[in-house]
Amino acid sequence: MDANTATQRVTGWLSDFGDALAQRDFDAAVSGFGDDSYWRDLVSFTWNLTTAEGRDAVREMLEATVPAAAPQSWRIEGEGSEADGITEGWFTFETAVARGRGHLRLRDGKCWTLLTTMTELRGFEERRGQTRDQGVQHGAVKGRKTWAERKLEDEATLGFARQPYCVIVGGGQGGIALGARLKRLEVPTIIVEKNARPGDSWRQRYKSLCLHDPVWYDHLPYLPFPDHWPVFSPKDKIADWLEMYTKVMELCYWSSTECKGARYDEARAEWTVVVRRNGEDITLRPKQLVLATGMSGVPAVPDIPGAETFKGELHHSSVHGSGEAYAGKRCVVIGSNNSAHDICADLWEHGADVTMIQRSSTHVSRSATLMELVLGGLYSESAVKAGITTDKADLIFASIPYKILHELQIPVYAEMARRDADFYARLEKAGFLHDFGEDGSGLFMKYLRRGSGYYIDVGASELVADGRIKLRSGVGVDRITETSVVLSDGSELAADLIVYATGYGSMNGWAAALISQEVADRVGKCWGLGSGTRKDPGPWEGELRNMWKPTQQPALWFHGGNLHQSRHYSQLLALQLKARLEGIPTPVHGMGPVHHLS
Amino acid sequence: MDANTATQRVTGWLSDFGDALAQRDFDAAVSGFGDDSYWRDLVSFTWNLTTAEGRDAVREMLEATVPAAAPQSWRIEGEGSEADGITEGWFTFETAVARGRGHLRLRDGKCWTLLTTMTELRGFEERRGQTRDQGVQHGAVKGRKTWAERKLEDEATLGFARQPYCVIVGGGQGGIALGARLKRLEVPTIIVEKNARPGDSWRQRYKSLCLHDPVWYDHLPYLPFPDHWPVFSPKDKIADWLEMYTKVMELCYWSSTECKGARYDEARAEWTVVVRRNGEDITLRPKQLVLATGMSGVPAVPDIPGAETFKGELHHSSVHGSGEAYAGKRCVVIGSNNSAHDICADLWEHGADVTMIQRSSTHVSRSATLMELVLGGLYSESAVKAGITTDKADLIFASIPYKILHELQIPVYAEMARRDADFYARLEKAGFLHDFGEDGSGLFMKYLRRGSGYYIDVGASELVADGRIKLRSGVGVDRITETSVVLSDGSELAADLIVYATGYGSMNGWAAALISQEVADRVGKCWGLGSGTRKDPGPWEGELRNMWKPTQQPALWFHGGNLHQSRHYSQLLALQLKARLEGIPTPVHGMGPVHHLS
Repeated sequence: MDANTATQRVTGWLSDFGDALAQRDFDAAVSGFGDDSYWRDLVSFTWNLTTAEGRDAVREMLEATVPAAAPQSWRIEGEGSEADGITEGWFTFETAVARGRGHLRLRDGKCWTLLTTMTELRGFEERRGQTRDQGVQHGAVKGRKTWAERKLEDEATLGFARQPYCVIVGGGQGGIALGARLKRLEVPTIIVEKNARPGDSWRQRYKSLCLHDPVWYDHLPYLPFPDHWPVFSPKDKIADWLEMYTKVMELCYWSSTECKGARYDEARAEWTVVVRRNGEDITLRPKQLVLATGMSGVPAVPDIPGAETFKGELHHSSVHGSGEAYAGKRCVVIGSNNSAHDICADLWEHGADVTMIQRSSTHVSRSATLMELVLGGLYSESAVKAGITTDKADLIFASIPYKILHELQIPVYAEMARRDADFYARLEKAGFLHDFGEDGSGLFMKYLRRGSGYYIDVGASELVADGRIKLRSGVGVDRITETSVVLSDGSELAADLIVYATGYGSMNGWAAALISQEVADRVGKCWGLGSGTRKDPGPWEGELRNMWKPTQQPALWFHGGNLHQSRHYSQLLALQLKARLEGIPTPVHGMGPVHHLS
Repeated sequence: MDANTATQRVTGWLSDFGDALAQRDFDAAVSGFGDDSYWRDLVSFTWNLTTAEGRDAVREMLEATVPAAAPQSWRIEGEGSEADGITEGWFTFETAVARGRGHLRLRDGKCWTLLTTMTELRGFEERRGQTRDQGVQHGAVKGRKTWAERKLEDEATLGFARQPYCVIVGGGQGGIALGARLKRLEVPTIIVEKNARPGDSWRQRYKSLCLHDPVWYDHLPYLPFPDHWPVFSPKDKIADWLEMYTKVMELCYWSSTECKGARYDEARAEWTVVVRRNGEDITLRPKQLVLATGMSGVPAVPDIPGAETFKGELHHSSVHGSGEAYAGKRCVVIGSNNSAHDICADLWEHGADVTMIQRSSTHVSRSATLMELVLGGLYSESAVKAGITTDKADLIFASIPYKILHELQIPVYAEMARRDADFYARLEKAGFLHDFGEDGSGLFMKYLRRGSGYYIDVGASELVADGRIKLRSGVGVDRITETSVVLSDGSELAADLIVYATGYGSMNGWAAALISQEVADRVGKCWGLGSGTRKDPGPWEGELRNMWKPTQQPALWFHGGNLHQSRHYSQLLALQLKARLEGIPTPVHGMGPVHHLS
């Protein structure tokens, strides 16, 4: 089939769908969907991130949202295309208050997947291109305020004479990306960060760390990396970029500032957020509070008998710095995911004697294979050459409903298993417990379901395979003595350093720490899809729990994830916040009950 | 004529030209050029910036350069186009050592204008996109050096244990843009800047200053401004951008460092450059020295009788700060170009009593009209939408030979005169002496010919027109007393502040100050085309004197100009320096004699 026919099919479907919705004829609208069909909406209809799965759910969501959304002007964008029996195309549309973009896949003439996503609020568009600021005030004006004077004044008054509409707790990549979106949308915002400089949370990590995701996946909004930027950013380089970005985007960034606590006043619909800055407590009263303290949440520190008696050094991976101090020391790392591997390799490189305790099986993807098989189609130099911009890649990725994402991943990881068979054989021969996920869907599904359970191999696996990193697998830790770790099989490992590379709790742990346990419980577990796999109990949720969307606690939001997610979902979260600032009605559809507390 | 035919014509011409050159058949090659024809070469054939004007000059330049350049692989890029009897198109080509891009205009089947420009040296391409650095060294490596460690080590050794290949004196926009190009080409370079921070030369200017050129004209290489960047950057904002850019591009930037002097050792083919940094003299021994101290050169301070007796404040515009200190003071500004107008308006805004002394006539373009009529086609939001990238705009602009540029400018300024007739009438009614250049070719030709003689009106002209800025025109300054300025008509102006907005000398004044008068004289005047108009004496040179190209002093280069020129010509200068570093033969064609010392 040629592009013309594909374009006609997409155009025809959009036209029928648009007409049906305009007439509120939901029978006709739903008749365009196949039995096995999905409609993923990002904010535009639902003021939520929601996927309707199957025709009945689509009908329910249409009936609930179309009257207020009043969608219209469905227009194909570019040409349609066809491959493997699927016709697909991009389109734009409008609602009563916003503009949107979407993606459609047709199978046998019926919709298989539909993505609708909000791109901007009408009347509150970001000022860019033609509508950018003039910068200069032409003419002669006595008492003129310069850019520098206005900036100083803004910084001096926001949080004092003027209250921010939004406070973001956490000034890492997530808080910074969201802060930039809100700045462009003119939402007065303060970012609160405990460290002294933007990027410090990267700078403080062990020294050999580089991003595990490639540069094409890591762009921040608005200001892409220049084209010589390395594939895998060294930690200090990405830190410097974040610091520069914060300054160039003119974010109101309160560094060296710690959030002491927050309380919501239902009657005033306002938060009271106490922060300590320069030794002084300051009370902020924003309407919206975003926790961007890291999707990994609060460090999970296991309660191991005898730990308090240990005479060496014992700490969680989150505070572990460089291995330089441990040359010649006996180091025991408890855990076998990314942090554990990275820390073990760094310790080995610095001449330590290293043992990894693998308590349960782990997935490993070799970095090069992962780039080629999993990310290459959307985030790579060849994708850029094929015209897949970062925005487009983000939307293509978003267009696959979570419900079927694993089905597309399974064959990819089967290919990985074939291609790297020798590598996996060597790892397993060394006793390493390896898996590709319970259903063979690999690394990214583990990331979405539980945010853990894998390692992107950048070198440590060879050390494990040949015994330079000693491995004890399939054992637990029974107890810790003054000088050693005792394993569940009774063996004892003498230790100078013990690292708990034991992961993190759910992000709502931050709500417990900063607000109250009651609010944390009301909101419930963050992240995960409800897949019913390990650490991601059902029922099925269809979207990541509580991320970038309204929660059961009014005016409380969670933002986090990798650089790709920080970039893409910050746009959707920013639009939700801007709409509330401007008093645009935001009827939320599809708020589910909370099934798990953490 | 449709695109097909235009494409065929361009392709046909390139094919014939390429074949003729391959056979060294210069008769055939030259037969493709019209009587009135121009070939502008930027580095690719001539290792110089040179325009051959007319068929004979084209023949001479081909005969001189083709044997070594050995050009081949002439290929059209995209489609040709046709308008007003001119067929044009883009193309690429290769030489023995480089790749190039070019632009061709045909009139009646013959070449009217040909541009050839070097884009990269084969085997020494910038590493970007597919060839970018990996950033991480996968595997486990004892004693691994991180990015941060290597960077620190580089900074600590360059200029001490290792000598830079190139030293750039002046870390403003020009030095920074060139530094970035050289960094990407892996040419070890130190930028020496007297101020404490990149951007300080902007920060120190009067506070209401914004760039007079619009954002689309001002991008630095590699890292364009984000699309919300204001049209006219406020001075502190562009300063912050330069500071960020210097850091992100990892330039070796010695701030708070003053160049004390430089001397060239012919035998060693090496410079000795003494700089004072942190109170200590350091001797650098680069092979190449670039003066990027500002195209405006050394401040021109007139020798006015009695100036030394003046009891108020008297200074040159280059050191004039904000007008805040002068509320209620009587201020006399000598001069009527950009700086004079900006300073007068700033003083007026701060409540000073201001008189401008206009000694000779000045061209004024209103900013909005200038943007629309002169820059809009290449550097504007609509140009961006029409697919004219910054690179393409730079090349289109470069494709017009200087010899005929004024012919294209004259009708534009005639239109400006029509459109803003009321404005000019009011100015002249106030006694303002106005011109559009001797031949009516307006602002940009004045910029190229003499770098002065105009004002881009952002507000001061209304103050002049209605007398809020007092104007004394057509008079000279006779002498200065203890308390006043006495004009050539005998009238006397009481003054608390006198500002010499009297312009700058030629850039070779910097060579005199830093190296020797002998070298300055050997090199001769910088800038200007030899147009025979005021302050740009003939004979005709065809290109800007001494800018971005070899000079009569081996290994001495001049770099400067506005942000557009800093961006575009930094590429050509960087390629010339890189070729010399790598020992690629660089036979320079078309070095002319020096006609003027300053």
